[in-house]
Amino acid sequence: MTTFTIFGNGAMATAIASVVTGGGATVEHIGSNDKDAAVNGDIVVLAVPYPALEQITAQYAEKLAGKVVLDITNPLNFETFDSLVVPSDSSAAAELADALPSSTVLKAFNTNFAATLSSQTVGDNRTSVLIAGDDDAAKQNLASAVQAGGVDAVDVGSLKRARELEAIGFLQLTLAAGEKTQWTTGFTLVR
Amino acid sequence: MTTFTIFGNGAMATAIASVVTGGGATVEHIGSNDKDAAVNGDIVVLAVPYPALEQITAQYAEKLAGKVVLDITNPLNFETFDSLVVPSDSSAAAELADALPSSTVLKAFNTNFAATLSSQTVGDNRTSVLIAGDDDAAKQNLASAVQAGGVDAVDVGSLKRARELEAIGFLQLTLAAGEKTQWTTGFTLVR
Repeated sequence: MTTFTIFGNGAMATAIASVVTGGGATVEHIGSNDKDAAVNGDIVVLAVPYPALEQITAQYAEKLAGKVVLDITNPLNFETFDSLVVPSDSSAAAELADALPSSTVLKAFNTNFAATLSSQTVGDNRTSVLIAGDDDAAKQNLASAVQAGGVDAVDVGSLKRARELEAIGFLQLTLAAGEKTQWTTGFTLVR
Repeated sequence: MTTFTIFGNGAMATAIASVVTGGGATVEHIGSNDKDAAVNGDIVVLAVPYPALEQITAQYAEKLAGKVVLDITNPLNFETFDSLVVPSDSSAAAELADALPSSTVLKAFNTNFAATLSSQTVGDNRTSVLIAGDDDAAKQNLASAVQAGGVDAVDVGSLKRARELEAIGFLQLTLAAGEKTQWTTGFTLVR
């Protein structure tokens, strides 16, 4: 059975937990007040805002070694809503992989609004979790845990594709903020 | 009534023409064998592959002055299928705007497969044309022509957002080539 450790207790952390526990996985949460907590999960989800990644990697790098670590962030400039704060030829996921050289970093869930994970639908479509990463077995494990919970999962390629996933997440956030789509829908991939 | 000039006679040119003529617009086509053709449309669609833009702008810049010009390209590196050929902090649309300083350049249709324009559906969803540009009136005119033809249209923001549209187009092409989605479906925005 897959075991998850989820950093964070917000809407995304809760929604991701509901999907994977629905599929039979066990989940433990680590909150920002937990200092030096044990990390027991095989898959670790950093369900925190982008700026929180730096402190987590500084504090937990050793405990994350050898584990699969999921970056779900959308590194927007929330002052301007007009750009990302990562370099245009990089991604939050690439930065995380650099900061955690002994972990297997995947990008996932950043194109899903929390509500579409909870409802498992985007309009009339089944919600799809898009996964990018360089380790096929890690992507397959995550996809299986997500699919067991009732949501579709799609391997979109190498960790380089995190850049495109972050572009989708960025555009989707600006469209929802501008009422061009809803916080309960957004983009979806029709298979 | 809106008048369109469409450069190209391929699948995308045909599909775009079918949408806007369905909405009552008139369309003329200019093919690669037409030398120094007249450009009569108010909206000009460059429905050609990215590498063809350079020659068209060199030949037709004067005739495109004062017109709304649509870039629909996905500037992929088709040898590697692993990157775009435009700089990471730019876009094909930004390059086109630089090459046509007297035209109003919009990005549109690059996230639509031809089949989804012809069928007007992406799975069970109505096809949406995503439009980026810096001229609100031009975007509204295009949106009206597209909506009159039965397809949804969404203003996604300034021409800077072409970068995110090209990221979606890029990822969608790699997913279709990898059989992770179909050439008749792909990404869609649920409103």
